[in-house]
Amino acid sequence: MKQKIKFSSTAVAFGSCADRYVLDGYSPQKSFKEILEAAKKVPDLEGIELIGGWQLTKTNARQVIKRVTDSGLKVSMIIPELWSSAKWGLGSFTANDQKIRQDAIDNVKKSMELAQESGCNPVSPWFGQDGYDYCFQADYIKSWDRIVEGVISCADYLPEVEIAVEYKIKEPRTHCFIGTIGKAILLVKEVDRANVGVNLDIGHALESYENMAESVALLKRFGNKLFHLHLNDNYRLWDDDMIPGSVHTIETLELLYWLNKTEYNGWYSLDIFPYRENGVRAVIEGIEWFKGLFRVLNRIGMDNIEKAIQEGDATKSSALIRKGLLI
Amino acid sequence: MKQKIKFSSTAVAFGSCADRYVLDGYSPQKSFKEILEAAKKVPDLEGIELIGGWQLTKTNARQVIKRVTDSGLKVSMIIPELWSSAKWGLGSFTANDQKIRQDAIDNVKKSMELAQESGCNPVSPWFGQDGYDYCFQADYIKSWDRIVEGVISCADYLPEVEIAVEYKIKEPRTHCFIGTIGKAILLVKEVDRANVGVNLDIGHALESYENMAESVALLKRFGNKLFHLHLNDNYRLWDDDMIPGSVHTIETLELLYWLNKTEYNGWYSLDIFPYRENGVRAVIEGIEWFKGLFRVLNRIGMDNIEKAIQEGDATKSSALIRKGLLI
Amino acid sequence: MKQKIKFSSTAVAFGSCADRYVLDGYSPQKSFKEILEAAKKVPDLEGIELIGGWQLTKTNARQVIKRVTDSGLKVSMIIPELWSSAKWGLGSFTANDQKIRQDAIDNVKKSMELAQESGCNPVSPWFGQDGYDYCFQADYIKSWDRIVEGVISCADYLPEVEIAVEYKIKEPRTHCFIGTIGKAILLVKEVDRANVGVNLDIGHALESYENMAESVALLKRFGNKLFHLHLNDNYRLWDDDMIPGSVHTIETLELLYWLNKTEYNGWYSLDIFPYRENGVRAVIEGIEWFKGLFRVLNRIGMDNIEKAIQEGDATKSSALIRKGLLI
Amino acid sequence: MKQKIKFSSTAVAFGSCADRYVLDGYSPQKSFKEILEAAKKVPDLEGIELIGGWQLTKTNARQVIKRVTDSGLKVSMIIPELWSSAKWGLGSFTANDQKIRQDAIDNVKKSMELAQESGCNPVSPWFGQDGYDYCFQADYIKSWDRIVEGVISCADYLPEVEIAVEYKIKEPRTHCFIGTIGKAILLVKEVDRANVGVNLDIGHALESYENMAESVALLKRFGNKLFHLHLNDNYRLWDDDMIPGSVHTIETLELLYWLNKTEYNGWYSLDIFPYRENGVRAVIEGIEWFKGLFRVLNRIGMDNIEKAIQEGDATKSSALIRKGLLI
Repeated sequence: MKQKIKFSSTAVAFGSCADRYVLDGYSPQKSFKEILEAAKKVPDLEGIELIGGWQLTKTNARQVIKRVTDSGLKVSMIIPELWSSAKWGLGSFTANDQKIRQDAIDNVKKSMELAQESGCNPVSPWFGQDGYDYCFQADYIKSWDRIVEGVISCADYLPEVEIAVEYKIKEPRTHCFIGTIGKAILLVKEVDRANVGVNLDIGHALESYENMAESVALLKRFGNKLFHLHLNDNYRLWDDDMIPGSVHTIETLELLYWLNKTEYNGWYSLDIFPYRENGVRAVIEGIEWFKGLFRVLNRIGMDNIEKAIQEGDATKSSALIRKGLLI
Repeated sequence: MKQKIKFSSTAVAFGSCADRYVLDGYSPQKSFKEILEAAKKVPDLEGIELIGGWQLTKTNARQVIKRVTDSGLKVSMIIPELWSSAKWGLGSFTANDQKIRQDAIDNVKKSMELAQESGCNPVSPWFGQDGYDYCFQADYIKSWDRIVEGVISCADYLPEVEIAVEYKIKEPRTHCFIGTIGKAILLVKEVDRANVGVNLDIGHALESYENMAESVALLKRFGNKLFHLHLNDNYRLWDDDMIPGSVHTIETLELLYWLNKTEYNGWYSLDIFPYRENGVRAVIEGIEWFKGLFRVLNRIGMDNIEKAIQEGDATKSSALIRKGLLI
Repeated sequence: MKQKIKFSSTAVAFGSCADRYVLDGYSPQKSFKEILEAAKKVPDLEGIELIGGWQLTKTNARQVIKRVTDSGLKVSMIIPELWSSAKWGLGSFTANDQKIRQDAIDNVKKSMELAQESGCNPVSPWFGQDGYDYCFQADYIKSWDRIVEGVISCADYLPEVEIAVEYKIKEPRTHCFIGTIGKAILLVKEVDRANVGVNLDIGHALESYENMAESVALLKRFGNKLFHLHLNDNYRLWDDDMIPGSVHTIETLELLYWLNKTEYNGWYSLDIFPYRENGVRAVIEGIEWFKGLFRVLNRIGMDNIEKAIQEGDATKSSALIRKGLLI
Repeated sequence: MKQKIKFSSTAVAFGSCADRYVLDGYSPQKSFKEILEAAKKVPDLEGIELIGGWQLTKTNARQVIKRVTDSGLKVSMIIPELWSSAKWGLGSFTANDQKIRQDAIDNVKKSMELAQESGCNPVSPWFGQDGYDYCFQADYIKSWDRIVEGVISCADYLPEVEIAVEYKIKEPRTHCFIGTIGKAILLVKEVDRANVGVNLDIGHALESYENMAESVALLKRFGNKLFHLHLNDNYRLWDDDMIPGSVHTIETLELLYWLNKTEYNGWYSLDIFPYRENGVRAVIEGIEWFKGLFRVLNRIGMDNIEKAIQEGDATKSSALIRKGLLI
């Protein structure tokens, strides 16, 4: 590998994960102090992601960030509050209510200020509530206009802070506007600002029948726009937010190859929901999978892989990977 | 139609629907009194479903049921508490912890007692937490043994109360043991008790790439085992719990035809999560879709449909349905 | 409707449809004369699509086109030979073999010449063989470069002939490069030629979990790039190429609304594979579904729909559509 | 491993694989002699599967079988002709045409005779054409009756020959009656004959969102009914018939564990469509993946895995597998 890997995790992985059936979470609620203590137990962890509305509120943000840095961790990402309260039910940047739209944009700008102060870069707005559930519910053109305008407004507010837009095809809406790698790049190109790129959640890519490696490659081709990376895994039909590597071994290997080839040097940040697992052990597992897969890649040899790709012979590639993996 | 249709709804459709992002729900919390008042505003509604752990607790159950009947509604279904608290995270009937297994079975039996007292029939255990998320996590054979034994124990406890097992392929687990119509019927045959059948959630059927009408037909063929019906709709990859009829118009029409043909005479019960909608209006919409689709069926004529099915010519069937629908 | 609808169909719909199991087709092979005679039996049909390699060969192309126009039909579309012979197995525009790449580009140019001569516009290259099946098989960046360069070369060859790129997420490759509406628009923007747009196959859109109406709207927003339309339906997981309207009634209604709103004035062209059906009756069914759905839209009123969309209230929209549909 | 693994392959893997676009196949047609010669180049191959209608016809069957055995291979499976000609388009065992139904049943019986003569056991009918494409096209109850009756008739014809029914959820029909593991076991139980079991195609299991290991376990639980095994892999949404192991590494590992635990001792038979690959190398790759995965399992230790499963702790299981795989 050309780069040293920096591992990070969302704070929620160490807390109590809830779903729509068990609203109190599958384990007891934890204070932020307990979450930080848990995070510190993960040997390779250097950074932690903070979510607006969950760990960060209007009043506590600076204090929370300070506690992270005091603990010896970095704030790897600030995720603006655009999707974790009822207010955004009908959209954030695309809401019909002008006041809500403005609040959403303001929330991103505030996150950018926090990021700048704390040295965290980028921030990652996720337009999860911006979409629709039913037919005849949305004006698709107007909605795109609003997202484009809103992102431009944020990008120009603090050009030195990067914005990594996260895309996802569904959930919490049945259809989200910024749903695929194609649409995400389209947004980035339309916004056309140097500080706007993409946060690739590999589970979201899988959920859209994307090959994660291909999505990384496209971000490289269209302007070197991979700004951040969310790691997890799933069974391809839903954002199961499982331990990364646990399902798609070969595709994850190819992802790592392309991250290396395209010289990605941002965070490797776990975004998992270990509902029924111990968070510390789940995060360690995810990191160990990645470290192990990198060992496999190095054993095979980056040059050998590049040669196989250039040849384009599937069985030869298969043999190369198989011999390196199944020793 | 041979039968008058009895419409029912889950109580949660009138409350505040939450998901894993907006844990407080997309609308303000409602008291049970407010929920009942909302339900009373739906003209065609005759019954209401109560969920253990949400509307029914150990201490309030009889009082809640009395309030329903006092309001002029019937309790159409009691759903035992097997999936709405952290306790069941690693399974209810299949948990490795013997005490949890016993509690789960006891909960179903208590629901059966309540059902018997209140004249509600059947109860509907849903084994949503009984499954697994990862490979190498479950003993599939032992788990099936435990479910079979547990259901037999319940069935024999009060043979005059019906048990309608609800199946679902995933969520909250990535894989649930009783996941498809085939597995549900297999369970019913293995249990082999007259009072055990199936609660068909049509969204769950869609999520498993089932044709809902075919699933109804199979339940008829294998012992007349359709005991209850949950109505909703989705985009086929997830249990979106949308207003029924809003997506799959033709398949819902065929479902209604087969419900009529197989002489289903149970409840037509809406199980929807109108996260961002007004619950009263959403339930009314669902009922009106069904009433409208029944009008279409009657206009086409049950005998004409039967003839078309027997002929098996897809374009003729299409023309028959199209002419009846798009007048 | 603002526009008169022009209906067209692929020639293959009247021929013998084969799959990988029944390679001789599910009905007897038909001569092109028989195909044309069948097409003439469809009252509303004005155009026919011709596929390179199937109906059009190097030697017969002008003669075949003449026979179509002699029969009173128009050639609605010429589809270049890029995917129907073994030669393209490892790609057309993206093949590693430079000669194959050149042949592919030449084939598109020859189609453009034919289109120009015959007054047909646009031609529609489909990069179905340009993709990959396995991990570590493709250089994603190089492949995109090649498609972009190739399409530019074609676009500049005859700027007065339109090129409508068709996208599809999978089949015949497990992953196709130009797979989604986002990627298709990205390609069009990258190519940046006035005569390059998109052929939207609504079944391909469904297969990518797209809402067809949204895809139409995006093509409007990003440069009015909807050049052609392929009609069919499927169960959302595969390109079943069924009679349009037979599965997704409401989504097809919304599609028609947006086609009208965005003033699409191209062909409504059926691209179906009636493997086991009579082709003439299947095409008639498809056209009648569309005509019926337009009647429903007109009954509801375009202005009323626009108001509902602007309001963004899902239950109100549902009621509006339901009352217009289920009378 | 308790058992020596016997590898087999379908003959088609060495021939020319076609799809609905490239009907002549992606490589030149091969004579049966050439197919056999190719098969002999695979070091670990002991058996070959023959498909009625493709390799076996009414007149050549005995001769073809003799050529296989003369070549030193065994006939691992005879697949009756129920799905490879237009005749079966509207069904084989479930066709409305009584003569076609009878022909289908007779074809299975003839296959059973051939199997008995040649020492091959079992035969594997696949009801791929028995299903429906559109709503209102099928009488689901009557169709199941016909399949049950037909299979009983075959089973009783030669009780010493085993019948391994293969299930698949879709393709070539959009919906097949015997589509899932649940329905397959239901059929086997309804037929209730000692010589009737299941042919588990692991790609078909994946396509139905099944965990392959769980399907093996269920076949054990419900009467030890795993009679045959088809190996391949896919991306979970379609029967891509890829080289086994190339996508789902961990799930394939768990499959192998359960095959060993349940003492499966039948063939490990590759059923792949290497459209664009060299068949010999593709089959070798598949076998090498399996051999390598067995090595990994043995390194981890069957007892250690069993302990992990009994504990049911996902992160512990993950660590165990990871350490054995990623050394």
